Amino acid sequence: MQKFYQPGSDFIQQLFDRKVSPDPEKLQTIIKLFDDVKRNGDQAVKKYTLKFDGVESISPAVALHLKDFESKIDNSLKEAIAYAATNIQTFHSKQVPSNDESYNLQIRPGVFCGLQYIPVESAGIYIPGGTAPLFSSVLMLVIPAQLAGCKNIICCTPPDKNGSINPVIGYTLAYLGIEKVYTVGGAQAVAAMTYGTESIPRADKITGPGNTWVTLAKQVAFLNGTGIDLPAGPSEVAVLADDSADISFVAADCLSQAEHGYDSQVLVVTTSERIYHNLTAEINAQKTGLSRCEMAEQSLENSWLIYVSDMNEALKLINLYAPEHLIIQTVKPEEISQKIINAGSVFIGPWTPESAGDYASGTNHTLPTSGNAGNTGGVTVKTFMKTMTAQTITKEGLLGLGPRVITMAEAEKLDAHAKAVRIRLNRLKGNDNG
Amino acid sequence: MQKFYQPGSDFIQQLFDRKVSPDPEKLQTIIKLFDDVKRNGDQAVKKYTLKFDGVESISPAVALHLKDFESKIDNSLKEAIAYAATNIQTFHSKQVPSNDESYNLQIRPGVFCGLQYIPVESAGIYIPGGTAPLFSSVLMLVIPAQLAGCKNIICCTPPDKNGSINPVIGYTLAYLGIEKVYTVGGAQAVAAMTYGTESIPRADKITGPGNTWVTLAKQVAFLNGTGIDLPAGPSEVAVLADDSADISFVAADCLSQAEHGYDSQVLVVTTSERIYHNLTAEINAQKTGLSRCEMAEQSLENSWLIYVSDMNEALKLINLYAPEHLIIQTVKPEEISQKIINAGSVFIGPWTPESAGDYASGTNHTLPTSGNAGNTGGVTVKTFMKTMTAQTITKEGLLGLGPRVITMAEAEKLDAHAKAVRIRLNRLKGNDNG
Repeated sequence: MQKFYQPGSDFIQQLFDRKVSPDPEKLQTIIKLFDDVKRNGDQAVKKYTLKFDGVESISPAVALHLKDFESKIDNSLKEAIAYAATNIQTFHSKQVPSNDESYNLQIRPGVFCGLQYIPVESAGIYIPGGTAPLFSSVLMLVIPAQLAGCKNIICCTPPDKNGSINPVIGYTLAYLGIEKVYTVGGAQAVAAMTYGTESIPRADKITGPGNTWVTLAKQVAFLNGTGIDLPAGPSEVAVLADDSADISFVAADCLSQAEHGYDSQVLVVTTSERIYHNLTAEINAQKTGLSRCEMAEQSLENSWLIYVSDMNEALKLINLYAPEHLIIQTVKPEEISQKIINAGSVFIGPWTPESAGDYASGTNHTLPTSGNAGNTGGVTVKTFMKTMTAQTITKEGLLGLGPRVITMAEAEKLDAHAKAVRIRLNRLKGNDNG
Repeated sequence: MQKFYQPGSDFIQQLFDRKVSPDPEKLQTIIKLFDDVKRNGDQAVKKYTLKFDGVESISPAVALHLKDFESKIDNSLKEAIAYAATNIQTFHSKQVPSNDESYNLQIRPGVFCGLQYIPVESAGIYIPGGTAPLFSSVLMLVIPAQLAGCKNIICCTPPDKNGSINPVIGYTLAYLGIEKVYTVGGAQAVAAMTYGTESIPRADKITGPGNTWVTLAKQVAFLNGTGIDLPAGPSEVAVLADDSADISFVAADCLSQAEHGYDSQVLVVTTSERIYHNLTAEINAQKTGLSRCEMAEQSLENSWLIYVSDMNEALKLINLYAPEHLIIQTVKPEEISQKIINAGSVFIGPWTPESAGDYASGTNHTLPTSGNAGNTGGVTVKTFMKTMTAQTITKEGLLGLGPRVITMAEAEKLDAHAKAVRIRLNRLKGNDNG
């Protein structure tokens, strides 16, 4: 870890800057792939599946039957998935808009305006295969989409070498009642859901994690007018620790983030000299024997350990960094957490490791990275819904509202806007000259 | 208008497709401009202001004083702005999250998870100058940002030829209590708010309408990890009319949309042979004398009038098109509106022209275009807020949750995730071997 002892604020500002424009060449590669999939549909998708996954796919649509997977999964894992699913359902069901969130108001006599929440009709969900089968992401995306009431839930996941789906991903999808999956991965899966092909339906919104190419593809989908959940970057954790923190917990939390990927980032902000001086040794002691030790080592090289003497200063740093995950290991951690304004999800106190939220506490693990916690939260039920407003104006209402609209439209030099009101007001006054 | 009598569904699917990848060259131009502003700050912004606006700006920050503008604005316009502001405040204040929307639940014994809404700290608002001073957009963006409780509201608007701000825009900002404005326009304004410069603060989220370059700049801001309100495209209206509709109202509504810009789009779906055959003549009769007649004519050339015999078929077309604005002029228009799932804002019945919502009914006029109404609504108070989740787990909670988290983490081959739990469980069990 790179260590900084009471660094200056200009230095910090630069250190924390994670805003990077995407590589224009890579962007252009993906735009071309999208155009290909738009024009050539399934044929283009097959071509890229052969190229990138080395799989000759016949039909990407695979029907899911729970019994096909049940025998392949340990009972303890099945029990854990059921337990986590229940927690996630309990937590997310409170996000379903109440009757009060959709509303209709009389704004002025005869002027009625309303807002309602409506589910996105077709939710696209991308589940990466790759080195680790992220079945936890199935729980984190399918459950909110189901609670939102999406009519179609379209799931894509890369095929394995035999063109089959990973059994734990298949089990989790089938357990949640998903009846079909598309064994397509990478940017071509995102392009297919953007436009629709002969065999893969178009999605209104595309969600889910993925590698750099999938992330870039989701950004191009967004530029094409398809909704996406979050602009995902490398995963991050910040740990805020004072001298009361257990250094072995802090080290374990750093490693659990660092093993995510070569580009994962860990930030520790501490007001404890003890932790500042001893954390690296503790991490080194714990990391031996981890299966992803090499990956963890590399991402720790780009991670930061910062000492500041004052807790308010430490909080300022955390809010400036706006971490995806924040672990608070201090005295009165609940009080400290009240001062956090920029973070995806907060883990409060010594018995709350990030892993709990990654899998099973109930909160969502699809969270904003790269400082986006300053402008957005993670996935909720409302990620799979949208608002629609409506207004009904009566004759009386238009008599009051109309003249003001005409005045404003004319001040913006939009004649025809004014005329659309005037033609109605004239009709109301029995004068039909428009 | 292009007329289609009972067109086939394949044809319609193609006709309605508005998904277009952005031009990679233009994208690259904007990415370069962003890099320049990131590196050179104010100096780069000044360079582009001179290049694009022809203005030698000294300092972009201008203090706003209501009295400087009051004498320049007609009393009737001042009254209309106050009236509209009140309506917009009334409608949007119902979107402020209630105590019930932020929540904290006990998910399992000792496992507490919560979600809260937090205002975005710095809201960036872009107000175009150009041919029409869109002071209505000031109302539509500043009011929700204020209701959300944003600490900083950063407004940028292009300078006029003398480097000054348009007086109606200045008045509206000052009327709402905004004390400072930055006279910077175009892509350079969006880049400045993305990174911050010496004189223009960084915004967490950038909102507001603009031309093609501003839109592209907002997309690049998004690719850089800054929030944006909506991926804006050309403005659209759909009119759904049966034989009860007043053809002169329908024509006026078409023209009020068509005058927005050369690329505005109008879609009329009707079940009335009368309207299908006579609408063009009615539009031609009404359009003479409009100040933006030429613009309206051009956008009408790319607009569509579709006849279908059946109302359910008509509704299917509207939901497929997913219009920014939808005007319903039918018998029982409220009943018909219940069947709409994809639209930004709906205008119900003969006395509800789109102009009402553009200015003063209370609903927001910043709405999704290009089919994005299928995945998102328009600007609300929540556009300027974000969610943050948190969890607190007690010792008892971790004893229940922990073993399941370990099982799931190991199934995903994430050892260190399991270890962050195991080290704590071992401590709880008085066994410190990690």
